[in-house]
Amino acid sequence: MRVASFILPEGTASYGVVEGDTIRDAGAGLRAKYPHLKAVIAADAIGELRSADGETLTADSVSFIPTIQNPDKIICIGLNYLGHIKETGRDRPEYPSIFTRYPSTVVGHDQPMIRPKASDKFDYEGEFAVVIGKRGRAIAKDKAFDHVAGYTGFNDGSIRDYQRHTTQFWGGKNFDRSGSMGPWIVTPDELGDVDSQTLVTRLNGEVMQETSIGDLAFKVPDLIAYVSTITELLPGDIIATGTPSGVGFFRDPKVFMKAGDRIEVEISGIGTLRNTIADE
Amino acid sequence: MRVASFILPEGTASYGVVEGDTIRDAGAGLRAKYPHLKAVIAADAIGELRSADGETLTADSVSFIPTIQNPDKIICIGLNYLGHIKETGRDRPEYPSIFTRYPSTVVGHDQPMIRPKASDKFDYEGEFAVVIGKRGRAIAKDKAFDHVAGYTGFNDGSIRDYQRHTTQFWGGKNFDRSGSMGPWIVTPDELGDVDSQTLVTRLNGEVMQETSIGDLAFKVPDLIAYVSTITELLPGDIIATGTPSGVGFFRDPKVFMKAGDRIEVEISGIGTLRNTIADE
Repeated sequence: MRVASFILPEGTASYGVVEGDTIRDAGAGLRAKYPHLKAVIAADAIGELRSADGETLTADSVSFIPTIQNPDKIICIGLNYLGHIKETGRDRPEYPSIFTRYPSTVVGHDQPMIRPKASDKFDYEGEFAVVIGKRGRAIAKDKAFDHVAGYTGFNDGSIRDYQRHTTQFWGGKNFDRSGSMGPWIVTPDELGDVDSQTLVTRLNGEVMQETSIGDLAFKVPDLIAYVSTITELLPGDIIATGTPSGVGFFRDPKVFMKAGDRIEVEISGIGTLRNTIADE
Repeated sequence: MRVASFILPEGTASYGVVEGDTIRDAGAGLRAKYPHLKAVIAADAIGELRSADGETLTADSVSFIPTIQNPDKIICIGLNYLGHIKETGRDRPEYPSIFTRYPSTVVGHDQPMIRPKASDKFDYEGEFAVVIGKRGRAIAKDKAFDHVAGYTGFNDGSIRDYQRHTTQFWGGKNFDRSGSMGPWIVTPDELGDVDSQTLVTRLNGEVMQETSIGDLAFKVPDLIAYVSTITELLPGDIIATGTPSGVGFFRDPKVFMKAGDRIEVEISGIGTLRNTIADE
């Protein structure tokens, strides 16, 4: 099942099930009980969406919002594909490198990602992201998939000069509306084997990043176990698993995004997260 | 005025005004309008607390919770006192080094700070913290104080081995209940000149850190201007301005906190944020 969060044509935020080119507004009958998708997941009620009644809309008649609109935490992994580790000149790490983004930094599918006035060093990072389904602390690796509600695409849009102001990535990763999440959540039963999936990032149609998800140095269970040693994972929390090689900053010449550019993160079994770039 | 958040003896979360050793439960009449202190601040209604009726309680009859219980952001500055920069072996930075803590990492005054099972490298960091009063993006330095609701104490409790797993501080700074905030907010009119205040951290009564707030490399207006270039500051957001020299990790021999230890952060014009350490 593919589950999306969106704004209905008349302006209400809802959620529903993606079926081909249409979306069934499952939230129509469920919003009174679960105001948003995070509440659905927290109630372990994603199965209720399968049969929930609601108007069927064309996908292009709604405005997508981030798959989880108000996550408690968006946890991002740096340097997790060996190719990207190599392009940054670093050694293979012993532990995952982690930073965090505020929900205000992320827009939904088909919404503009914003290049800020403060910089023209705006780069893409296509990523495979995990949506947590069940709360947990110190989760064992062999129980990790029990805590997954599904998977989605992520663009960890980065302001490279601010990212390099200090050792901490915070500044480059937290500009308002500089990242993206979506287009929807795919449940684990539909996605199948995580490691067999592939990720491609395209800028204006040109392939910039391409990887197998199986090339992650720290895999989904490793990440869930490590992160939950530190902080309790809650339903709706996002773990963006890191970006592969091919980011604009490490190209020669460097490539940065500008207003009007189209950036796409396509993941097999999920779909394509597409955004255009706009100036602040 | 000194404004605190707390749990009343009968179990309800409220907020009120600290007057000597007593607290007036100003929330009694205001909670219907403003459910918590963040809502008071967002409505620019802190002045209403001055005259709000409510039972007067002894301070030791309430349980303090973090001064702002549910901040949108807790923004922490690393390496901001020149003495601490020197003890870590680094050069004076050109930009503030920033990381973030989740609200779940912070307890209130007099509540136990938790040393996790995962590590015995639990260190203190006494800090002076700013509470944002008015939202703003790209705030000019000379307007920065207009965006301040008040000041509070902060203990940026750190799990040093996790902090050093990678270049990113996230792991060491985000263990659940490993930090502390309080004891209360002091409004700017009562605190007076920020740079004239002093901060002392004591472990079991022994002075471990001592500084003038005036020794901050990046001062409050610098921090508000830089941070708000990146992300919109919202009412109730916290900026913990960094810790001075004297942390346990850089002592010889190193000092770490263990169950039963008492850690205090005293700031002139504010008061003393006191916590005991408990094992997870």
